[in-house]
Amino acid sequence: MELNSYLEQTADQVDSLIYRYFGSSCDDLGRASAHLLLAGGKRLRPALLLLCADAVNKGSAIDVVPAALALELTHSFTLIHDDIMDGDLVRRGVPTVHTKWDEPTAILAGDVLFASAFEFLSLADAPDSAKVRATSMLARTCVEICEGQHMDMSFEARDDVGEGEYMKMVEKKTGALYAAAAGIGSILAGGNPIYTDALYHFGQGIGMAFQIQDDLIDLLAPPEVSGKDQASDIREGKKTLIHIKAKEKGFDLSPFQRRLSSAEIDEVIGRLREIGVISEVQETARNLVMTGIRRISILPQSEEKDLLLQMGDHFISRSS
Amino acid sequence: MELNSYLEQTADQVDSLIYRYFGSSCDDLGRASAHLLLAGGKRLRPALLLLCADAVNKGSAIDVVPAALALELTHSFTLIHDDIMDGDLVRRGVPTVHTKWDEPTAILAGDVLFASAFEFLSLADAPDSAKVRATSMLARTCVEICEGQHMDMSFEARDDVGEGEYMKMVEKKTGALYAAAAGIGSILAGGNPIYTDALYHFGQGIGMAFQIQDDLIDLLAPPEVSGKDQASDIREGKKTLIHIKAKEKGFDLSPFQRRLSSAEIDEVIGRLREIGVISEVQETARNLVMTGIRRISILPQSEEKDLLLQMGDHFISRSS
Repeated sequence: MELNSYLEQTADQVDSLIYRYFGSSCDDLGRASAHLLLAGGKRLRPALLLLCADAVNKGSAIDVVPAALALELTHSFTLIHDDIMDGDLVRRGVPTVHTKWDEPTAILAGDVLFASAFEFLSLADAPDSAKVRATSMLARTCVEICEGQHMDMSFEARDDVGEGEYMKMVEKKTGALYAAAAGIGSILAGGNPIYTDALYHFGQGIGMAFQIQDDLIDLLAPPEVSGKDQASDIREGKKTLIHIKAKEKGFDLSPFQRRLSSAEIDEVIGRLREIGVISEVQETARNLVMTGIRRISILPQSEEKDLLLQMGDHFISRSS
Repeated sequence: MELNSYLEQTADQVDSLIYRYFGSSCDDLGRASAHLLLAGGKRLRPALLLLCADAVNKGSAIDVVPAALALELTHSFTLIHDDIMDGDLVRRGVPTVHTKWDEPTAILAGDVLFASAFEFLSLADAPDSAKVRATSMLARTCVEICEGQHMDMSFEARDDVGEGEYMKMVEKKTGALYAAAAGIGSILAGGNPIYTDALYHFGQGIGMAFQIQDDLIDLLAPPEVSGKDQASDIREGKKTLIHIKAKEKGFDLSPFQRRLSSAEIDEVIGRLREIGVISEVQETARNLVMTGIRRISILPQSEEKDLLLQMGDHFISRSS
């Protein structure tokens, strides 16, 4: 099977649960909670969870789709709260929750999704012992995501952020939830601890690579390809791996912290290519995926394992 | 045993876990998460959980103290987020988290405690099936608390809030977490479903009565007794049961939405007593406790059952 058709199929499964449970709220808080969920999204974390469940126990009668939804709810909760903290106005082509409603409602909408994630996880059709381990993993993951977001915010005011710190931040902010998606999929489907551990680290690695690729897309992709504003990270002074590596090589991006013309962006990109920053950052992302792929080499051969490899590749080759 | 010594003893147990796990954070977010927890608190929800566990299964080897802590973490999370929404500056005699740090840190600190609650609940030493049911109950409860807070905020702009709506709001905002404390205590200790259901509703009733008593204390208790500002609810135009009942009887408290002298407060109290509002509100709280006590009459006689009855009584007789 092609990865794209698998992703479409699992997104449909998750979307149908989203519409069933969040599609027709009759109160204001319910609508605010559902707003971002209903605005679309690639549902990559749920897909990873489902894929890992099948990779360790294909054809088991266990229904882990509610758990897959739990991962999407967790992701959506973090986006709603992050948007408040970052003051972002638009996400997925719609106004952010705190913009369309207000800040108190957005805090509560995030909290509702957070709680619902644990509710759906306990609804998954899996042995209780697996659900307890999955709950504990999701809870720990949420603490890590908060720590990652806090690190990311604290970087804004600093000009001495090192590569190690950046990698730790990405591990927590983005890697942790992909790790949990993979680990929880394996746990619920009855995967043995060695498979679960391998899949957890695979998810962590490709999740970190996903974030680094996001930073590359922000810089390199023209708006007509990415659907986003180009070079917004440089404009906002974000301490991305690109920023950190450039600084190490004597090219400080801080003076470009303003709206740049597309000619200026091209010049910056040219310079970054010249001094090898772009290729090094791409290499870092590729290594994370490769290390992840080596971790799951112990899994038996299967269509799902093949899709996992494709997924790793997709995370660092996508341009939007 | 006297209720007070029981409460002191269980508060010590919970406090020692709080100090162990939250007492020495070396990072900023950890300190912000621990701030309100370390500022004290009566630990009433943990006490109710422990009491209910013992009431259904005294002397069981099951350690539910981590679950009791989970309830306190949940309570603390809701306070941190509520304080942001309500713009409150001081709580438990210390600056609120968003005042001492900033709003983004306070949102994250609340989220960290929320996640930690589920982590500690899954650590409780109880059968997995019980922990899954407890997790699901806590998750549903958190959704209800958010709904209750949202209702409470929406009341501020309205002048037609009815008694039924007020009671529904209090049931969600305050009753739900006491209900969950009692229900989870019973579930984890292996209480049969009939005991669990009875304790859940007992918790809900005394929790609602607790909130109504809080409103009475706000109006009636002089600052030197309550440690709080007197009649702040009237000043802020809060739609309490006192406000709603007074309005029904033709005494509108809205014009008093300003700083009142203590002579004015006494005059308002006198008028409210005269038209029977105070006694009716006290009666409502007492009925909630009495109904709860009738629910748990099916429990076998025990020292713990006696303490539960004392607790119900304490919730409506306390003056601070």
